[in-house]
Amino acid sequence: MPSSATAPAWRRALEAALPSGRVVADPDILESHRYDHASLVDAGVPAVLVRARSTAEVQAVMRVAHEHRVPVVPRGAGSGLAGGANAIDGCIVLSLAAMNRILAVDPAAMIAVVEPGVINAELGRAVKTHGLFYPPDPASYEMCTIGGNVATNAGGLCCVKYGVTRESVLGLEVVLADGSLLRCGSATIKSVAGYDLTRLFIGAEGTLGVVTQVTLRLRPKPPPAATLAAFFPSMAAAGEAIERIVHDRTPALLEIMDRATLRAVEAWKPMELDTDAAAMLIARSDAADPGAEIERFAAICDAAGASELAHSDDEAEGEMLMAARRLCYPALERMGSTLLDDVAVPISRIPEMFAATEAIAARFGLTIGNFGHAGDGNLHPTIVFDARDPDSLARTRAAFDALVEDALRLGGTVTGEHGVGLLKRGVLAQEIGDAGVHVHKAIKQALDPRGILNPGKLVPD
Amino acid sequence: MPSSATAPAWRRALEAALPSGRVVADPDILESHRYDHASLVDAGVPAVLVRARSTAEVQAVMRVAHEHRVPVVPRGAGSGLAGGANAIDGCIVLSLAAMNRILAVDPAAMIAVVEPGVINAELGRAVKTHGLFYPPDPASYEMCTIGGNVATNAGGLCCVKYGVTRESVLGLEVVLADGSLLRCGSATIKSVAGYDLTRLFIGAEGTLGVVTQVTLRLRPKPPPAATLAAFFPSMAAAGEAIERIVHDRTPALLEIMDRATLRAVEAWKPMELDTDAAAMLIARSDAADPGAEIERFAAICDAAGASELAHSDDEAEGEMLMAARRLCYPALERMGSTLLDDVAVPISRIPEMFAATEAIAARFGLTIGNFGHAGDGNLHPTIVFDARDPDSLARTRAAFDALVEDALRLGGTVTGEHGVGLLKRGVLAQEIGDAGVHVHKAIKQALDPRGILNPGKLVPD
Repeated sequence: MPSSATAPAWRRALEAALPSGRVVADPDILESHRYDHASLVDAGVPAVLVRARSTAEVQAVMRVAHEHRVPVVPRGAGSGLAGGANAIDGCIVLSLAAMNRILAVDPAAMIAVVEPGVINAELGRAVKTHGLFYPPDPASYEMCTIGGNVATNAGGLCCVKYGVTRESVLGLEVVLADGSLLRCGSATIKSVAGYDLTRLFIGAEGTLGVVTQVTLRLRPKPPPAATLAAFFPSMAAAGEAIERIVHDRTPALLEIMDRATLRAVEAWKPMELDTDAAAMLIARSDAADPGAEIERFAAICDAAGASELAHSDDEAEGEMLMAARRLCYPALERMGSTLLDDVAVPISRIPEMFAATEAIAARFGLTIGNFGHAGDGNLHPTIVFDARDPDSLARTRAAFDALVEDALRLGGTVTGEHGVGLLKRGVLAQEIGDAGVHVHKAIKQALDPRGILNPGKLVPD
Repeated sequence: MPSSATAPAWRRALEAALPSGRVVADPDILESHRYDHASLVDAGVPAVLVRARSTAEVQAVMRVAHEHRVPVVPRGAGSGLAGGANAIDGCIVLSLAAMNRILAVDPAAMIAVVEPGVINAELGRAVKTHGLFYPPDPASYEMCTIGGNVATNAGGLCCVKYGVTRESVLGLEVVLADGSLLRCGSATIKSVAGYDLTRLFIGAEGTLGVVTQVTLRLRPKPPPAATLAAFFPSMAAAGEAIERIVHDRTPALLEIMDRATLRAVEAWKPMELDTDAAAMLIARSDAADPGAEIERFAAICDAAGASELAHSDDEAEGEMLMAARRLCYPALERMGSTLLDDVAVPISRIPEMFAATEAIAARFGLTIGNFGHAGDGNLHPTIVFDARDPDSLARTRAAFDALVEDALRLGGTVTGEHGVGLLKRGVLAQEIGDAGVHVHKAIKQALDPRGILNPGKLVPD
């Protein structure tokens, strides 16, 4: 749709500043760029979509937006779970998905330099050919982008050993609110040259700047992993096994599923899971001698009272043991509408968080399957509800609030890896308090004085 | 010295706000709190020293300083190497050294909560009794404080595997410029609840707030380490060994010393080091089977052309192999005044940085021993000079500038782990550019609008 003489001034300026065809106003296309994957939160109607192809184009968009005070919502694959990429009425949706080049893989320096639209799994495959490894592996790794991973500080399964996205980013190129270009961080593993701006932008959900290039740290490709699955008759026993494992050696992965989730998986894809068990743990080792480490973990589980144990140092067999974990969310998803929540607690409080989740499910008459990254204390209580039933929706909202409150009561956090976006903006204030809100606003004001970068997201009112 | 009626108003307000005896004006004591361990930079004369005993006392100091616009220089053990803790004329030196309690070690949650004055090594010993490990180990670990480690994002020998201080801090309590109290981060391993304020304060050298409590992540105590020492006939061969080692497995430590440093050590404490070698590498493994991993590293060094190899999986023998590395700085220090510099480059550029250092030493007629953390590309070229000779001092300053320029030319950073303080404030602007300086100033202004927190440090003019 070409800009007409009646289009607003900012729209004409935007079209003049960009190559022909970059500014898209087709309503169907806009509709498909309104939402990310979050439940329970609303989205506005964007004025236009820009599919940027270069840093210069991102700068051009920000210059126009800054001059005309138009809100900009940066967006990668839209796989976020907190509404951080949801559109705002009258905004420019700025898609970075087409900036998807791997600019360099430098095996000698063990770094990669990528544009933000590169898909996580594609980077993983590209570096693997050099005997290297890019650890962060959110569940959406086959579709999510590195830029989105940076914007949300995405986690995944292997964080317990390799850290979250933050620990794999060395440097960033960022377009600031006024269109100026910042380079922060370094191509070196260590740098303390000034404020840690790199980590300020990581997890800022596009509210402080638009990431246009990412320098990533790569790791040596680990040996083939060995895997252990263990069932426990009580959550207390599972909790004891978790504590003892992470105290002994850092596993490459340590996941947990509760009974409600085990039953949902078994009901959908029968694989002889023990649906009377209170919990299933899955551990993985990619240490120098993975089989030996996994046997240590098996002995720990046995001593903690595991009712059933299976382990293997064969990768294919390991994937079979992992299958139940990978099916947790899809199995719950097919039972109704779902709210995939995300909280984290200290490792020692995991059994209490599971008990709290069960109590909340009973109190609000909801099915809540709880599973997640036991080694990090990061859990994903997933509420199954009926989106067409206002009462079910109301109970879901109440359960969501209760889950977050219990996580805070147990010394935890309102979001471990999914981010704040729209979904957790209210409860964030509970966690960070008045001084925290004040500092958030001061930093937002300092870097985005006109409030055009993803306004209304992350920073509490 | 009691406050008299002629003392300035802020001084009377400070004494009224604190318990008797907290405010110290004894000139000898003030003199001993003017400097940290940095060379080449100056220090002012403080008005008073406050030895805070509690968060509430730090808040009281900041409230008075904020109201009366008095500069405050926070200080731990004063072991910093960039002048970050150097006094400013008329300032309050705010010592956190007496806030030295380990408030909690929670082995089940694998965290510790400490006051900022806790000595790094004391924390290490306290957690070891629980089978746990606090990795960051700057060379000054027997005297430096956790608060200082946080303020500078301190590194050390084990960073190549375990990361720098940043990777071990989960949460902070920070007194802001106006005396208000912020808690950021979490007791959980993962949290994405808002901006990463924790990492904004880490490495900010007390310019954004005063850290009064630190929540730290602990790791499983690793098995006894195995150690390898290898000599190389050329820096190229050593560089090849470094690249191949870090590409194969992440060592627990990977250090390098050049010929000038080897000769300085051997001249002081003869231990039959090969002083004709171009470089000595020391690697350590604390993997599940450290002996096997160290043999892999030995084979790599051999293939890269090592002229001499020694390795051991005995810890005491390993310490003997490490002795030469631990003597690098003291051996150079006894040869004259020293400037212990700190730059970092991508791992693949290490041989070039050594060549650049040798060229600079020749050009300016100086002895420069170069050694450091090869696995991170973080090097400490140490210039030996005569502080009483203006010409030697001038050549040292010129060599310092040249070293930093070469690090930047090689894609590196002006400081890998020692920080900016006063020493690197000028060259920081070269690295971060105009946009970087602008963002630094905006953040400083947002959090310290009256410019009272360690003014003149870190943030370029």
